[in-house]
Amino acid sequence: MKESLNYIHKIQKELSIFGGIGALLDWDQKTYMPTQGATERSDQISLISRLSHERLISDELWKHIRMLSNHDVLNKLEEKDQIVVKRLEKDIEKARKIPPEFVEELSKTTSLAYVAWDEARENNNFNRFSPYLEKIVGLQKRYCEYIGLPGHPYNSLLDDYEEGMTVEQLKQAFSYLKPRLVEIFTRIKDSELFRKQQNLKLKFDADDQKELCYFLIKKMLMPSDRTRLDVSTHPFTTSVGNDDVRFTTNYGRGQPLFAFFSTLHEAGHALYELGLPKDDYKDTVISDAPSVGLHESQSRFWENMIGRSRYFWNYFYPIFQKSLPQQLNDMDLKTWYFYVNMVEPSFIRIEADELTYCLHIILRFEIELDLIDGNIKVSDLPRVWNEKMNELLGVVPKTDTEGVLQDMHWSGGSFGYFPTYAIGTIYASQLFKKIIEENPNIYNEIDKGEFGNILSWLREHVHKYGRLMTADEIIKKACGEGLNSKVFVNYLKDKYYNLYDI
Amino acid sequence: MKESLNYIHKIQKELSIFGGIGALLDWDQKTYMPTQGATERSDQISLISRLSHERLISDELWKHIRMLSNHDVLNKLEEKDQIVVKRLEKDIEKARKIPPEFVEELSKTTSLAYVAWDEARENNNFNRFSPYLEKIVGLQKRYCEYIGLPGHPYNSLLDDYEEGMTVEQLKQAFSYLKPRLVEIFTRIKDSELFRKQQNLKLKFDADDQKELCYFLIKKMLMPSDRTRLDVSTHPFTTSVGNDDVRFTTNYGRGQPLFAFFSTLHEAGHALYELGLPKDDYKDTVISDAPSVGLHESQSRFWENMIGRSRYFWNYFYPIFQKSLPQQLNDMDLKTWYFYVNMVEPSFIRIEADELTYCLHIILRFEIELDLIDGNIKVSDLPRVWNEKMNELLGVVPKTDTEGVLQDMHWSGGSFGYFPTYAIGTIYASQLFKKIIEENPNIYNEIDKGEFGNILSWLREHVHKYGRLMTADEIIKKACGEGLNSKVFVNYLKDKYYNLYDI
Repeated sequence: MKESLNYIHKIQKELSIFGGIGALLDWDQKTYMPTQGATERSDQISLISRLSHERLISDELWKHIRMLSNHDVLNKLEEKDQIVVKRLEKDIEKARKIPPEFVEELSKTTSLAYVAWDEARENNNFNRFSPYLEKIVGLQKRYCEYIGLPGHPYNSLLDDYEEGMTVEQLKQAFSYLKPRLVEIFTRIKDSELFRKQQNLKLKFDADDQKELCYFLIKKMLMPSDRTRLDVSTHPFTTSVGNDDVRFTTNYGRGQPLFAFFSTLHEAGHALYELGLPKDDYKDTVISDAPSVGLHESQSRFWENMIGRSRYFWNYFYPIFQKSLPQQLNDMDLKTWYFYVNMVEPSFIRIEADELTYCLHIILRFEIELDLIDGNIKVSDLPRVWNEKMNELLGVVPKTDTEGVLQDMHWSGGSFGYFPTYAIGTIYASQLFKKIIEENPNIYNEIDKGEFGNILSWLREHVHKYGRLMTADEIIKKACGEGLNSKVFVNYLKDKYYNLYDI
Repeated sequence: MKESLNYIHKIQKELSIFGGIGALLDWDQKTYMPTQGATERSDQISLISRLSHERLISDELWKHIRMLSNHDVLNKLEEKDQIVVKRLEKDIEKARKIPPEFVEELSKTTSLAYVAWDEARENNNFNRFSPYLEKIVGLQKRYCEYIGLPGHPYNSLLDDYEEGMTVEQLKQAFSYLKPRLVEIFTRIKDSELFRKQQNLKLKFDADDQKELCYFLIKKMLMPSDRTRLDVSTHPFTTSVGNDDVRFTTNYGRGQPLFAFFSTLHEAGHALYELGLPKDDYKDTVISDAPSVGLHESQSRFWENMIGRSRYFWNYFYPIFQKSLPQQLNDMDLKTWYFYVNMVEPSFIRIEADELTYCLHIILRFEIELDLIDGNIKVSDLPRVWNEKMNELLGVVPKTDTEGVLQDMHWSGGSFGYFPTYAIGTIYASQLFKKIIEENPNIYNEIDKGEFGNILSWLREHVHKYGRLMTADEIIKKACGEGLNSKVFVNYLKDKYYNLYDI
């Protein structure tokens, strides 16, 4: 028993080390790696993934886990070890369902598919990508068979990102959300303020942006000896270690506030990573997020609920004005607040505002389901995409580059991932509602740029659990109920009807 | 046969990938890693080293190598595979001589010793370090027994850094070098120019330094898509891949030209790494430097023979003047050239000038030999060090921090490493003499800031061989003779008697 316990802790430690190394290889590739290093980097990442996967599915580890998870043995373990054993058994059982040949085939296909997608998008040529996407859809279906969760086949895909979540639950949440988002959006488009609105033309030097971003993360209590903020094309967050969490932003994008909001967003992810359970659970499967959606709830919480609130800008707008006096001194706070929340129909998901964002997600979820169900074919996608865009957002992209080809997710075989963006957003609104209920004074703190109590609340009600519970269980414990899109809709109505004088 | 060949190539490829990953982990630790990441980083580096070492000494690999190196089989292989098999067999045979327990003991001891050394130096307290150094000296002796090369035990240490080099050869080279360096140094100290010389007080902004360093490496034809220049406390060069070579400098040191000369130095290492054999030998043991000394010859060549020459400054000094007009416009080229070559007795090796540098090395070599021979005890070191400093350089450090504790090498167990600095310097002078003989026009090219032919010559006569030959063989082929300190002494006399009007 002792030997098996030591063995599984040794392997978990190695898996955790491999995870950190893989994170560094990936981070470096996206931040500092010379361009010609890409081929060798891909070999490096493959080797680490392979070694890590081999350990996870090895017969030796399985033997020890089975020994420990035997009822009589399990009951003799300390509680924390019982938890680890059960969690690890579930992970390995799932991983062992997938034949190694399948893993290899998927990996080869997606790496070719990425290149094809990239070229297809570059040249607005969906046909360049479609044969690969067809193959990937086929592989996703096979994957669902291997995993074989009850209910809809797509549940097996969802489960990788949002454990326990089902198509049925999502359909319910989205069938409430979709018409209401469309309704709010329609009323906004009919409003006078919408007709009169125009985008600000802000000139914002990279150095000024950077200074404000660093000021922001300092106010968010980001520990500078355990984190880094760098620059990459697409912002992201990764953990090289428990004490080495890295996130990125980009000061060079067209939109002047892109860097500031993406820093807020990624800092939310980073603070979550820093708050995951250590002590008893360091270097175990528990010290991780239970779902992508819960991770996303943390970034959305900071980016939208905090960062696009009036209270936040009460504090930060004067600081922005000081940084850009010539451009902002004549603009009042109300105008600025309107500007950072302005709703605009857009083709591109990652540029969407807080209101329309989830419509982009629902569109993708519906398409993924239809592909897995065989209701539509890959060749139908450009047409279906544009029809749905028209239905949900009232705009039709002129090219597939701006439409069905905009996201890289499908080229990577990440079916089931998109919904987590909406789940995270809804969770964030629920957490926000709860924190305000419990601490009505929070508004005054945000007003003063004080985020310590917010962070403590998130640490206490979300971060500290890691994978001790599922995301659903954590949200239920924190908010008294699971995924509830009503809360999100009410939040949006409050905010946007006010903003647009409706 | 085919199977064994595939196997050894697969393992070499893995070793090469591990090497790149290890290099990235190390590079990142010294450049960007948040301070608190150190503990986990050390776990990451250990795991990669262990996996790599396990593969190198595995019975499986040894079995295949022995099969292939059998005379009858070997003769049937392609020539390039024969070369790889013989080289790899030699490496593995050596690695397998060291018991894994010893590797672990050395690794544990040096990691404690590093901490002790760091504190000892910080507090000028040799006794904090000496117990660890004693243990390390003992381990070095045991290492010599395991390896067991003929002749002096220290040969087995030397061989790790400078394959084939012996104590006998080094004693011969240094017994020529030492009195002559002392003589040149003495004559300089007696000169009028030495008595009158004073250091320049140059104010040199980091941004200006950086601009000049990037201009320099562009002139050196450093490919920006395969390399990076970053900042670290101590400059270094490492290869994350054949197409991803990274070097560093430091703009914040007291000496205003430190960054420029260390960039030149490290760029020399980087250009060598980029020139190592690919094609037939990519991801094999051949695609590496045959010795640390030969590597150092490349950095010294660029730093000293090129970068401290009159011709070099004919081109670069006007550029420096443009960058620092207020400080340099009134100074002529001759004064500047004197300044960048000025000789000064110094306690600190890494701050030493081109002339006295090798005296610092000879001192360390003599001490290492005496420790291994048991002629002196670790407790004698502070006294011995100071006596030798007085003898060779005529100065005695006031503290052990500035004396025997200045270098970290011994804390890492790197006995036999120091001599490579002198070997590299001597090799560099030999290569320089040869390149000028073969291309008298090189001076005119340096004069114009053109380094293409120099780089091609080094590629052709040094870089392209990798480990196809030993350093000694490469130098013999290029220069017509092996290590020859006379060439270096003549170079120094020419340069310094001229500089000091002797």
